[in-house]
Amino acid sequence: MTRKQLTQHIRQKQSYLCVGLDTDLTKIPKHLQSHPDAAFEFNKQIIDATQDLCVAYKINTAFYEAMGLKGWEAMEKTVNYIPKDQFIIADAKRGDIGNTSSQYAKAFFEMMDFDAITVAPYMGEDSVKPFLEFENKWAIVLGLTSNAGSKDFEQLKFVGDDNNTGSGEFLYQTVLKKVSSWGNAENLMFVIGATKASDFEDIRKIIPDHFLLVPGVGFQGGSLEEVSKYGMNKDCGLLVNASRAIIYAGEKEDFAAEARVIAQQYQSEMAGYLK
Amino acid sequence: MTRKQLTQHIRQKQSYLCVGLDTDLTKIPKHLQSHPDAAFEFNKQIIDATQDLCVAYKINTAFYEAMGLKGWEAMEKTVNYIPKDQFIIADAKRGDIGNTSSQYAKAFFEMMDFDAITVAPYMGEDSVKPFLEFENKWAIVLGLTSNAGSKDFEQLKFVGDDNNTGSGEFLYQTVLKKVSSWGNAENLMFVIGATKASDFEDIRKIIPDHFLLVPGVGFQGGSLEEVSKYGMNKDCGLLVNASRAIIYAGEKEDFAAEARVIAQQYQSEMAGYLK
Repeated sequence: MTRKQLTQHIRQKQSYLCVGLDTDLTKIPKHLQSHPDAAFEFNKQIIDATQDLCVAYKINTAFYEAMGLKGWEAMEKTVNYIPKDQFIIADAKRGDIGNTSSQYAKAFFEMMDFDAITVAPYMGEDSVKPFLEFENKWAIVLGLTSNAGSKDFEQLKFVGDDNNTGSGEFLYQTVLKKVSSWGNAENLMFVIGATKASDFEDIRKIIPDHFLLVPGVGFQGGSLEEVSKYGMNKDCGLLVNASRAIIYAGEKEDFAAEARVIAQQYQSEMAGYLK
Repeated sequence: MTRKQLTQHIRQKQSYLCVGLDTDLTKIPKHLQSHPDAAFEFNKQIIDATQDLCVAYKINTAFYEAMGLKGWEAMEKTVNYIPKDQFIIADAKRGDIGNTSSQYAKAFFEMMDFDAITVAPYMGEDSVKPFLEFENKWAIVLGLTSNAGSKDFEQLKFVGDDNNTGSGEFLYQTVLKKVSSWGNAENLMFVIGATKASDFEDIRKIIPDHFLLVPGVGFQGGSLEEVSKYGMNKDCGLLVNASRAIIYAGEKEDFAAEARVIAQQYQSEMAGYLK
């Protein structure tokens, strides 16, 4: 999907909601747990109930890998089922030396029809670039994450590199600067954790144009209002993800309708911020 | 596998060789490419030909994911086929927020019987710890990697953290210090790229006891002699990986015998360094 298409969908739907399909067989409604194709059936009903309210779905690959072969199959079926006007993200946090990253890119962009994959930056340029070589596909690189562990490395301060740039800035800021020079705002986004809304202003000084994937609104405690206020740019520039808050909103047979109610709340709030 | 068992296998076999199964269907011998179960058949023959010469196999998950569902199946079959006295590594570079890392741990330690998984440290403590909670299983965390991109972040210098520790040290050194405090030398190893053999002495000052997984000997140009001289500790403390140099040594029907010849060369050289 191109940036132009994504931006159009956001305008049309008045939404920048991404629904996270962190499908865990121990958490889905009881009546579905014995279904022969439980994970896909759950996803299908969630997608049917929410697709007019969101512009993206994010598949957390860990949950599918934890189901073994059957999980990988459910992931493939889910990607095929999601309507083509949705931006489909593999939340896979991959990243390795060049020839290996190329294999991951092939897995998610060619074997499956994802639009984007999340990428861990630790190993540097040659680990990220293979994901930028596919037309209309995106790498979403980890910047500042919303978990407690983000303080361990992401928020340490650098002396600077050989060119003496980056002096005294946080690792995640160096990551945003360097990685953004490897691609452009048409093939690169960043993960920015929503619990640090106050940091959004500084982040927008470094990457004013890029889309940001913002997890952590909902169960992780971020504020949609603050994220939107400080993170939005002229093309919206935000995809705000909610996973558990939406997909596990209900525990009974009407779980999809319950999920829709929550998704609707996000969408209404977002429509307000888009004005 | 326990550290004691791994150390015993190294002594018995006089080898600390890890064979990397980076199985790529476009690179395996032509006569196997049309085999209905090509990836597994290739792996099976490589394993049969090398298992008395190595103590570990490393499965690069990217190559299997790139084959889709069939690849995931080949990975599972390969793990089940590898003899139980081998240390089996999922080279998967995973790492995410706590509940997601737990799912990855479940995938590789419970759904499949890997002994270890490689982990990316960027997201910090809660992204690594879930991999340390399984008895006799290991997390192998990225320290200093052997690719060109290691200069982008791993080799930048820090000012230090809130406690003013780590002043002026490289990011990868901070990673080694912090991560080693989250586990111990019985459940934690580090990836240290072999092309930087001169750094091994400094690294051993930070983590004298931990095992190091050393990729990059062979096609990536590292020297086995230097790695062994500077990296070895009293329990050997090294697993040196070679992938392409071994598994693609031959292109014809005798490829497994050719692979054995190269594995034998590594093992003989290692036996010398173990004395």
